[in-house]
Amino acid sequence: MAVATNVYDDIEGSWVSSRDEVKILDCTIRDGGLINDHQFDDKFVRGVWQACTLAGVDFMEIGYKASKKIFGASHGPWKYCDEDDIRRALGDDPQGPLISVMADADRTDYHTDILPRDKSVIGCVRVACYIHQIPAAIDLVKDAHDKGYRTCLNLMAVSTVQDRELRDGLELMAQSPAEAVYVVDSFGSFFPLKVRELTALYRAILEPTGKEVGIHAHNNQQLAYANTIEAVIGGANWIDATINGIGRGAGNCPLEQLIGFLKNPKFKMRPVLECVEELFVPLRSQLDWGYSIPYMITGQLNQHPRAAIAVRESDQPDNYVKFYDEMIEKE
Amino acid sequence: MAVATNVYDDIEGSWVSSRDEVKILDCTIRDGGLINDHQFDDKFVRGVWQACTLAGVDFMEIGYKASKKIFGASHGPWKYCDEDDIRRALGDDPQGPLISVMADADRTDYHTDILPRDKSVIGCVRVACYIHQIPAAIDLVKDAHDKGYRTCLNLMAVSTVQDRELRDGLELMAQSPAEAVYVVDSFGSFFPLKVRELTALYRAILEPTGKEVGIHAHNNQQLAYANTIEAVIGGANWIDATINGIGRGAGNCPLEQLIGFLKNPKFKMRPVLECVEELFVPLRSQLDWGYSIPYMITGQLNQHPRAAIAVRESDQPDNYVKFYDEMIEKE
Repeated sequence: MAVATNVYDDIEGSWVSSRDEVKILDCTIRDGGLINDHQFDDKFVRGVWQACTLAGVDFMEIGYKASKKIFGASHGPWKYCDEDDIRRALGDDPQGPLISVMADADRTDYHTDILPRDKSVIGCVRVACYIHQIPAAIDLVKDAHDKGYRTCLNLMAVSTVQDRELRDGLELMAQSPAEAVYVVDSFGSFFPLKVRELTALYRAILEPTGKEVGIHAHNNQQLAYANTIEAVIGGANWIDATINGIGRGAGNCPLEQLIGFLKNPKFKMRPVLECVEELFVPLRSQLDWGYSIPYMITGQLNQHPRAAIAVRESDQPDNYVKFYDEMIEKE
Repeated sequence: MAVATNVYDDIEGSWVSSRDEVKILDCTIRDGGLINDHQFDDKFVRGVWQACTLAGVDFMEIGYKASKKIFGASHGPWKYCDEDDIRRALGDDPQGPLISVMADADRTDYHTDILPRDKSVIGCVRVACYIHQIPAAIDLVKDAHDKGYRTCLNLMAVSTVQDRELRDGLELMAQSPAEAVYVVDSFGSFFPLKVRELTALYRAILEPTGKEVGIHAHNNQQLAYANTIEAVIGGANWIDATINGIGRGAGNCPLEQLIGFLKNPKFKMRPVLECVEELFVPLRSQLDWGYSIPYMITGQLNQHPRAAIAVRESDQPDNYVKFYDEMIEKE
């Protein structure tokens, strides 16, 4: 009998091959910094850098370029990524992944805090914004691009943006100098098929102006890896991951899993596993990250994880029923 | 500009609607029994039963019908599911989910151990087999069906079966009296798109003889939930899950997550969360289950998780590099 088994023949991509255009951006120190106020010590940062270098990772995002006027100067160094701090941790001429920083639209003094490229060890500026901040974000991208940096754009919380506004926003971003625009699942609320659909939409609008699409996933519903590989198969080429899945709340797509999936021989899993064993297993007793039921609940409700983070940090982290009742009540 | 966003318009299913044909089979006690030698005490079994009842679960699988001739009689009660043990735990006329047992082909004395339906509190017999055991499994299904039970078939380790053999096997099973045949990802090695493809293949061969398709996923790559919802969207109607994802090795699709996804108002998440809080949070200090890197490695290599289980039970559960080296060496 004739059987339609190849339902995906019409969909680009494969999970056996590799695709050389795929770039990995490790954001361990940047996203992980959200759970320890950006306080990783230099030894830890060097350990992650070393693992990323040996693993063949393309970009390593070391933190934020946050405004000291807005946030004060009391947070850890990776909130600001001052040039001196990066050089102290990684040296004056680090050979390995391109160093990336994240700059939030409206919260970065970029005219003063982002140096000309030839005065910095930073090589890439990723601009993060919400839908109402796209013009501000594009100004920031232009500034960084003109200073000589590689740039990309992360449109956050897209699960709360309606279709019409999203398309308009993507059309705007398509005119910016950014190399890539990310599908960002800030609340960990998307299913793989939705990510696939968004990847197709982003590609359709962005590729005509020569841009690529990226994916940044969160693990609230244990879908960070699933959503990431869906995006890869669907043609996304800038792929975010963190070692051991560290990151705010439920965390991110684990780098070690991603490398196993990608199969490109330029990426190596073993150095990442070494780093997990040496630096992350001990860290588990100090910091809480990864999937748990409160994150599942905020993810399913398409809400910011802050309520789940609060309960996980409280003295009743496993009071699931009380948390569920409160969240449903709020709906 | 015209943008093809609705790439899934041609694919059956939705993640906003519910589908009344979807049935949940809780296999907490059965699959969870693989990590404590089937020793759950009656209070625990009653707690799970109560949660399943209040949650609207359709079937509750309480254990195996294993041959005492082959396995001896020294394991816990849910290895055998003797009529007396079930009645002691749940009473003589339990009102709630239909009680299901799993019967392994070639390892069940079904002529003697499976009673006529009207003498048993069991209502459903699920027959598990490998590809070479299909004729034996069908004999078992026929016996149970003739005795009055609902029946289905779980073809295990399908990730090691080649296409031609799988199609032949499905054609055979399509002629059996089983109501459903499961896509079983025994090693946790499948990606969502592969599950979607298999679900389509199973449906194409099985639906013409009036059968439905089921999904039983494992969480080795943090894909149990992702794979389960892919199968649901793709038309699978018999859905396995366990409370808190308990199960051998990396465990299964969590029932609480599944109910959140299904959205059918007949299913309730809250009683499952109550049960997690009362029975499973304390259990975490005694038993190890859920995603960890050794399971990711066996899953990615499409291997039985036994080596990963051994390292997780050893005194070096987090020696990931050594485990990785050993597994790659074996390849």
